[in-house]
Amino acid sequence: MAALPNISDIREMQAWSDHARRQGKRIVMVPTMGFLHEGHLSLVRQGRKEGDCLVVSIFANPAQFAPSEDFGSYPRDLERDVRLLMEERVDLLFNPTAEDMYPRGYQTYVDVEQVSRPLCGAHRAGHFRGVATVVLKLFHIVRPHAAMFGLKDYQQVQVIRRMSEDLNLDVEIVACPTVRASDGLAMSSRNHYLEPAEREAARCLQSALGKAEALVRGGETLAERIREAVVEEISRHPPARLEYADLCDPKELQPVEEVKGPTLLALCAWVGKARLIDNRVLAGKEP
Amino acid sequence: MAALPNISDIREMQAWSDHARRQGKRIVMVPTMGFLHEGHLSLVRQGRKEGDCLVVSIFANPAQFAPSEDFGSYPRDLERDVRLLMEERVDLLFNPTAEDMYPRGYQTYVDVEQVSRPLCGAHRAGHFRGVATVVLKLFHIVRPHAAMFGLKDYQQVQVIRRMSEDLNLDVEIVACPTVRASDGLAMSSRNHYLEPAEREAARCLQSALGKAEALVRGGETLAERIREAVVEEISRHPPARLEYADLCDPKELQPVEEVKGPTLLALCAWVGKARLIDNRVLAGKEP
Repeated sequence: MAALPNISDIREMQAWSDHARRQGKRIVMVPTMGFLHEGHLSLVRQGRKEGDCLVVSIFANPAQFAPSEDFGSYPRDLERDVRLLMEERVDLLFNPTAEDMYPRGYQTYVDVEQVSRPLCGAHRAGHFRGVATVVLKLFHIVRPHAAMFGLKDYQQVQVIRRMSEDLNLDVEIVACPTVRASDGLAMSSRNHYLEPAEREAARCLQSALGKAEALVRGGETLAERIREAVVEEISRHPPARLEYADLCDPKELQPVEEVKGPTLLALCAWVGKARLIDNRVLAGKEP
Repeated sequence: MAALPNISDIREMQAWSDHARRQGKRIVMVPTMGFLHEGHLSLVRQGRKEGDCLVVSIFANPAQFAPSEDFGSYPRDLERDVRLLMEERVDLLFNPTAEDMYPRGYQTYVDVEQVSRPLCGAHRAGHFRGVATVVLKLFHIVRPHAAMFGLKDYQQVQVIRRMSEDLNLDVEIVACPTVRASDGLAMSSRNHYLEPAEREAARCLQSALGKAEALVRGGETLAERIREAVVEEISRHPPARLEYADLCDPKELQPVEEVKGPTLLALCAWVGKARLIDNRVLAGKEP
């Protein structure tokens, strides 16, 4: 079995993409932080259909973690990741070093203002600044025509869409549905942190979303009532501990008081060491 | 005489550049805010030598002006600009509208942190954030291989160089020497604001730089003594009023106390309604 083609050097990656573009190839990119799971692989499989060259990046981005967060312990298994990507027959793995991405003296950051502020942005200082910055850098290096993102990280998708539009990036942002394990838990590298009893408790994110949806189907329109049901469902499942449960408009992510049309319900809860997020668009489809 | 080829639409500009790139053409860009003078035209003439397609943009960028500043009165004369660019036989004028560049809901900005803070950055809140953002957008739209900037705006050049390097832009930033009028005043669209007596007083920027250089040639190394000579020279020329006179390292623009190697002396003075800047690299060449 041949090895997975692999580039770590930034200039070499740019030259590879320039060459592919000059040949008229359509480049599709799947940016990841590694420790791949079925969620990533679904992006890879969908990405295969979107173009000719499929590039997966693995880069655990220090700029999107606050000093108090889990950058140091974020799970890594490059050997396994490479094996999975070979099985998917991706064309190229791009895995730069942190020293090359953020050399000494690095000082340029991108802010996507309004859409970065609520939800996770209100709880993770600098997180979306780090996300927007690294995605912009990766787009400049890999020069994709399209890039694949998962809707589990719903706010991230909206930040990147807004950045791409505002900065005239000419990259198609393709958002794919959340992939869930058989117990309903949204796939996330951080699920790895969960002990068996915590994993059982973590199912409350999914059940809380289900209860909210049932309320809306039953005619409830007051955001506060729906939120109360979510809070109650999470509180019934210790050690799960709610960080936020917010209803907002699905594009600008600004809070709403009433469910009048498609409305995003976004949740975050801590279970043990794992900070877990999930979401559902109530009363409509994901945009 | 044929008309100057001219694009205002962003998508159309991107398509033009994509086409030129697929033909293997090297695109050179001269970003301007219009009201062109010999400084701009020197960038155009130098740019002609740097590639195959020469694109000049004219866009007075509201994002780089604070609300208290002169965006409303910044001089404009598109008809004259077009005539000058035709005489220089540029290949294309790109002049987008502010509504297309910053549509309703626009919210993405680029910060180049350390290098934006001193000098003009300390006196013009948000200025370099606006500059970095619009230049990044223009680079994404025009997709140049090289872009021309004048060293009169020395800090701007360093901000754009740093941004290009940090964000992996793959655009060559070409810096060109300051062009001066016969009376020594650095060319600037804002010189248009000067009444004759103010113009006479404005020559003190150039004479102050000359006095500083003479001191350094004579063996003076203490930044504070050099600065004092500059302050005195400006104070002898009312209505000129110093905003800052700083000695700093020519790359990171951090203040220095001693002139040990190439050192930037950057000046800003108000003369009437005109905020004028000038600079010189003492004890060495511009980097």
